[in-house]
Amino acid sequence: MKIIKGGITQPQGFKSNGIACGLKKSGKLDLGLITSDIPAVSSAVFTKSSIKAAPLLVCQEHIRNHITQAIVINSGNANCFTGKQGLACAQKTTELIGKKLAIPHEDVLVASTGIIGKQLSFTKIQDGAKKLIKGLSPHGADKTARAILTTDITTKEITVEITLSGKKVTIGACAKGSGMIAPNMATMLAFITTDAAISAKMLNTALKSASDQSFNCISVDGCMSTNDMVSVMANGLAKNKKITTANKDYKTFCNALNHVCLDLAKKIVLDGEGATKFIEIQVVGAKNYKQAQEVGLKVANSNLVKTAAYGNNPNWGRVAAAVGSVGIKEVTENKIKFKFSPFTRKHIIIHINLNIGAHKAVVYTSDLSYKYVKINVEYT
Amino acid sequence: MKIIKGGITQPQGFKSNGIACGLKKSGKLDLGLITSDIPAVSSAVFTKSSIKAAPLLVCQEHIRNHITQAIVINSGNANCFTGKQGLACAQKTTELIGKKLAIPHEDVLVASTGIIGKQLSFTKIQDGAKKLIKGLSPHGADKTARAILTTDITTKEITVEITLSGKKVTIGACAKGSGMIAPNMATMLAFITTDAAISAKMLNTALKSASDQSFNCISVDGCMSTNDMVSVMANGLAKNKKITTANKDYKTFCNALNHVCLDLAKKIVLDGEGATKFIEIQVVGAKNYKQAQEVGLKVANSNLVKTAAYGNNPNWGRVAAAVGSVGIKEVTENKIKFKFSPFTRKHIIIHINLNIGAHKAVVYTSDLSYKYVKINVEYT
Repeated sequence: MKIIKGGITQPQGFKSNGIACGLKKSGKLDLGLITSDIPAVSSAVFTKSSIKAAPLLVCQEHIRNHITQAIVINSGNANCFTGKQGLACAQKTTELIGKKLAIPHEDVLVASTGIIGKQLSFTKIQDGAKKLIKGLSPHGADKTARAILTTDITTKEITVEITLSGKKVTIGACAKGSGMIAPNMATMLAFITTDAAISAKMLNTALKSASDQSFNCISVDGCMSTNDMVSVMANGLAKNKKITTANKDYKTFCNALNHVCLDLAKKIVLDGEGATKFIEIQVVGAKNYKQAQEVGLKVANSNLVKTAAYGNNPNWGRVAAAVGSVGIKEVTENKIKFKFSPFTRKHIIIHINLNIGAHKAVVYTSDLSYKYVKINVEYT
Repeated sequence: MKIIKGGITQPQGFKSNGIACGLKKSGKLDLGLITSDIPAVSSAVFTKSSIKAAPLLVCQEHIRNHITQAIVINSGNANCFTGKQGLACAQKTTELIGKKLAIPHEDVLVASTGIIGKQLSFTKIQDGAKKLIKGLSPHGADKTARAILTTDITTKEITVEITLSGKKVTIGACAKGSGMIAPNMATMLAFITTDAAISAKMLNTALKSASDQSFNCISVDGCMSTNDMVSVMANGLAKNKKITTANKDYKTFCNALNHVCLDLAKKIVLDGEGATKFIEIQVVGAKNYKQAQEVGLKVANSNLVKTAAYGNNPNWGRVAAAVGSVGIKEVTENKIKFKFSPFTRKHIIIHINLNIGAHKAVVYTSDLSYKYVKINVEYT
């Protein structure tokens, strides 16, 4: 696997663009579009929150056939808690883009991020659509990467190249987060493109696994957003032998996809609100992966651990309390072992050995600083 | 029910004291003792954390016979993660007090709060024991209330009087907390005394229910401490007709006990680290109590909601996100209803109607301020 440049338009047959259509008062880019020249096999994972924003409800319908050719994304407004009007807006957006691209609207996904509870202006999207489509470019990755940001400080992109059955296959991606929990509802969006040839079933399995070990391993304070979504489009233009089983090519593809997702997840943590430290929590000796992940997330979500990290204070008692509070009976004082890297470093490692099994997980979070409180107090 | 004064020594036959034995460097009171003139029926609830401090392990054994005549409590050291030496120290402490009071050591409970991972000095307790016992007084409630504090700003006491079968019955209590999560592991300790005559079985049921609706309804950031403990001693000296079934007297007793526990729980929240607001989260329309409580705690533990409260910002989107993240499928955008009191007030009410059932719960928390971060960053 080779790390290269280019983002979501680096795989063959993808174009993208990003424009300012007036949804952000700042005048910054707020409307993005990603297209594939041909219909792509697709998969997506959505927030587990029972309150799902309108675009997610539309996407859940449109992803059923596992074919996607375009994704339209706006920032500045989450189109959540917007009732029938919001749902109609999301639907009309896919119809608008579908019509202008001459593709079925079911093959268009839609995503939103920003403030919730306010109606999203369809007019602004409509007015911007022509410019958005006209500017589609095989070099437009960065514009989309910028158009999906909210309080994020930097764009988050990654591109990797692998070889499958002798063919060069590329995976590109961009994401927006904002640290552990963001004022605009912590929305985490990630869009992945690839020219790999792979069946919908295998793509689905690969995405679920990669997401679980990356986006689901970063602390968002236990609160999933109403708008979280990760999607992948695979258009097959690399002409590799189509992956339909869990063969060697599938493993190579999964490794690359895992790397892409984990890289984005880490970038989201690093761009955390007010974050001054990157905290890596390694949990080993668990009975299964889920248990290790649960312990890691509990530690990652502990305000006591986060403030200790900010204060350069390796307070293992706080870590022990967080681990204990998971309530796994076998995890007792005489079994559990801790190892900490120096807390003065920018990248802190908290190593926890539960000593009750052979499974492990790694979870990432940032520290809790004065600035975090400031950002979240002052945001409206 | 009448609110009176006097604390844990107000019910007949209880004495208490508090001294400084040198566990706190500040020289403040750090060793407390509560005794009943006769063996009392007792019950206790302990942390659900799988990592339990040494004193809790001893208490779990000593509470089996449901008879207690003395409780010794130290602050300044949690006696947690202290291995065999710590366990021996807790055991020796009950033996020491039992011997000096001429009662079986199994009838002595022990509790600790303070820093974890450091050995508790049995010598200091031993050296202080004589003075501690000599000073036992039916007016010593306040000294114990002070001796159990750590970072708490104020003592937390409550006393109520009820009438059972024509007899005056008193319940007294004191607690230590420290807001949502305290630097010394958020230890929550509460000691309740009463002269009511009640069977161990009924006392147990009453305490479990009262705790669940009070101490388990305050936000401690999802992290139970390694040292949490609530105990009640009922010595029967009020001479009421002994409660052995869920009769009218039992209900009167339960109402009073609920009030006592809820009052202490609220005082713990109000004394929260850096707290400037008291947040009451009312969840109604749930399918059952547990569900309502779960939703309330999720909202209470949301850093976004806490910072919004601190910033006088009634951001219902943050509340909605927290509710949604519980993942109850029926709780959707078109069912859920919110009502907020003005966020500029010191006491904020967040009313959430899930509209899927007839059960409710109330959860309490404080806001997340700069001062909270400061306290927890600087503590060692």
